[in-house]
Amino acid sequence: MPDQSRFQPAAPPDGNRSADPTRAEGFADLLGLLAMGALLAFDRIAADARLAPDLARRAALSEMAAAEVEVYRRLAGQLEALGVEPEAVMAPYLPALEAYHARTVPTDWWEALTKAYVGNGIADDFHRVAAGRLDPAGRDAVLSALHASAYQQYAAVEIRTAIDGSPELGSRLSMWARRLVGEGLSQAQSVAAGQPALARLVLDGDPTRLVELHRRLVARHSDRMAAVGLSN
Amino acid sequence: MPDQSRFQPAAPPDGNRSADPTRAEGFADLLGLLAMGALLAFDRIAADARLAPDLARRAALSEMAAAEVEVYRRLAGQLEALGVEPEAVMAPYLPALEAYHARTVPTDWWEALTKAYVGNGIADDFHRVAAGRLDPAGRDAVLSALHASAYQQYAAVEIRTAIDGSPELGSRLSMWARRLVGEGLSQAQSVAAGQPALARLVLDGDPTRLVELHRRLVARHSDRMAAVGLSN
Repeated sequence: MPDQSRFQPAAPPDGNRSADPTRAEGFADLLGLLAMGALLAFDRIAADARLAPDLARRAALSEMAAAEVEVYRRLAGQLEALGVEPEAVMAPYLPALEAYHARTVPTDWWEALTKAYVGNGIADDFHRVAAGRLDPAGRDAVLSALHASAYQQYAAVEIRTAIDGSPELGSRLSMWARRLVGEGLSQAQSVAAGQPALARLVLDGDPTRLVELHRRLVARHSDRMAAVGLSN
Repeated sequence: MPDQSRFQPAAPPDGNRSADPTRAEGFADLLGLLAMGALLAFDRIAADARLAPDLARRAALSEMAAAEVEVYRRLAGQLEALGVEPEAVMAPYLPALEAYHARTVPTDWWEALTKAYVGNGIADDFHRVAAGRLDPAGRDAVLSALHASAYQQYAAVEIRTAIDGSPELGSRLSMWARRLVGEGLSQAQSVAAGQPALARLVLDGDPTRLVELHRRLVARHSDRMAAVGLSN
C-alpha cells in the first residue's frame, strides 16, 4: 500500500515465454484473479473469525485472514512491476467471487474453518497448475503467493480433532465441503468463459484440458478431505 | 498461531524492574489490553474496508487491518514468553473495546479511514507512555507493537487531500474525530477502574497522573488532527 518501493519497476516477470501479447495478457489476468481471490478471502475470513468459540481461535482465523492480505500484496506488487494497475485486472473477478462467498456463508466456527481449509487448498492447487504454464519468473511470482502450510496444518488438526469426537459433525462438514467445491467450480466456469486470455494460458490453448484441470483439482481436494477424516 | 516456536520460552521481558508481583501483573494486563485492542481493531478495520470507494483503497485499508494482526501476534508472543495465556489477560478488555466500536461504526469511507488514523495514533501514544514505565525489555516489547508509520502517512495524505477539496467533509470529520476521542476516553476510564494493577503500572502508582496522561494523549491527538487539516 503506502510502500513506495512497490512502485519501482523491478525485473518484470511477464510469464511471456513466446513474446505473445495474448500470453502476457493472460498472465496479468491470472495475477488479477489470484489477487482478487486473496483480497476477498481476507474479507470473508476476517468476518468469519467472529464465529470462533474463543479468543485463541478467533486470533488464529484472524491470522489466516491477514495472511491473505500478504498474498494479495505480493501479487499486486507483481502486477505493478509489469506496469499493470492491479484493480483493472482484479475487478472482472469480483462478481463471481462475491457470488461464491454469498452462497457459502458459514453458520458456525467449523464451517468457517473448513471453508478456509478447503478454499486455501484449492486456490494453492490452482496456483501450482497455473505456475506450470509459465516461464521461471512467472512461476516464481505465482508460487510466491501460496498459503503458508502452517495455517493449513492448524486447520487440519482442528477439524480432525473435532470430527474424531463427533461423527455427526463429520457428516455435516463433508456435505458442507461438497457444497463449497460445487459452488466454487460453478463460479470458475463462468470466470473461464468470460476471460479468454486467462483460459488460454491456463489450459495451454487446449479447451479440452479443462476436464483434466477439473479432475486434478478435485482429486487433490479429495486427498485433503481424507487427510482430516472428511468424506467426499 | 500454528507456529510452534512461539511456545518455546525465550528470555522473558517481564517489565518487572522491582521484582514486584503487582508490576508483573500490571505488565501482563498491559500486554493483554494492547493485544485485545489490536485484535478488535483488525476485526473492525477489516469490516470497514468494505466502505472503500474502489479496490485500491479497499486493499489499503485491508492492509492496515492485517497489520493489526501482526501487532496482536507480537504481543501474544510476549505474553506466551512470560508463561501467560494471552486470552486470559485479553478477555477483560473485550466489553469496553466492543462498546467503543459499537458506538463508533463508520458510515462511509472517510469516517472509516479517520477512525483508523485517530485510533492508531492514540493507541501508539499510549504504547509510548506505557513503555516509559517499563524496564528496557518490557519497553522493547511494547514499542515493537507500534503501527507502521507508512499506514499513518497513507491515511493522513488521503484525509488531507479529501478535505482540501471539501470544507464540509472537514467539518464532518472533525466532529467525528471528537466523538471517537470522547467514546475512547470514556471506555478507557471504565478500563482503568476495573484493572487496578494496570492502572498502577501506567500511572506509576499515582492516580493523579491520570489527568496528565489524558492531557498528553489529547495534545498529541490535536497535533495529528491539525496535521491533516482537521480542527478540534
